[in-house]
Amino acid sequence: MEIPAGAVAVIFHSVRRIDPDTGSAMDAAGYAAMAEAMQDLAAQQPGYLGVESVRDPATGLGITVSYWADDASARAWKSVSEHLVAQQRGRDDWYAAYSVVVAEVTRSY
Amino acid sequence: MEIPAGAVAVIFHSVRRIDPDTGSAMDAAGYAAMAEAMQDLAAQQPGYLGVESVRDPATGLGITVSYWADDASARAWKSVSEHLVAQQRGRDDWYAAYSVVVAEVTRSY
Repeated sequence: MEIPAGAVAVIFHSVRRIDPDTGSAMDAAGYAAMAEAMQDLAAQQPGYLGVESVRDPATGLGITVSYWADDASARAWKSVSEHLVAQQRGRDDWYAAYSVVVAEVTRSY
Repeated sequence: MEIPAGAVAVIFHSVRRIDPDTGSAMDAAGYAAMAEAMQDLAAQQPGYLGVESVRDPATGLGITVSYWADDASARAWKSVSEHLVAQQRGRDDWYAAYSVVVAEVTRSY
């Protein structure tokens, strides 16, 4: 992924909540639909450069990195209303834990 | 993951090479052993803050993010001799594609 210096990386670390009845991630279908909708919506935002998302189904651990032209576009995406709804669902239902690290790209190769 | 501002994130995007005979990732055991050895070795380096690594076995897509106190410690880890051997094995045998993005942390939450 060729990302220019000065771009902004938003690194989202998360752990999916496990449904005690099934032993697998809570609300897999609802989560997958929202994740796809959010990737599509992100791609329409000003300053969007790309996103890559990986989750290990066995551990529930995931990393999503989205890349933005600048800090303003990264912050704007955090505040898009449909995304705020998704963030709330994430906190309430889908994630056992998460953290976000924002960083300014210095080089890529 | 609480990462201080000014720390350095090294974001490693990769795709595992698929063995055409088995249809799954090439040399899974050898790769897993090296990945574990490299995580242990990284943790012993000056300036190491943490690492998180996720791979989806179904797609072969992976993201590893390592965090370092500063750019010098991130660069030093890239040049550790055992790590150079692992990087060469990665290029030769394990990865169909990879890219690295280096970024300076501005905030985390």
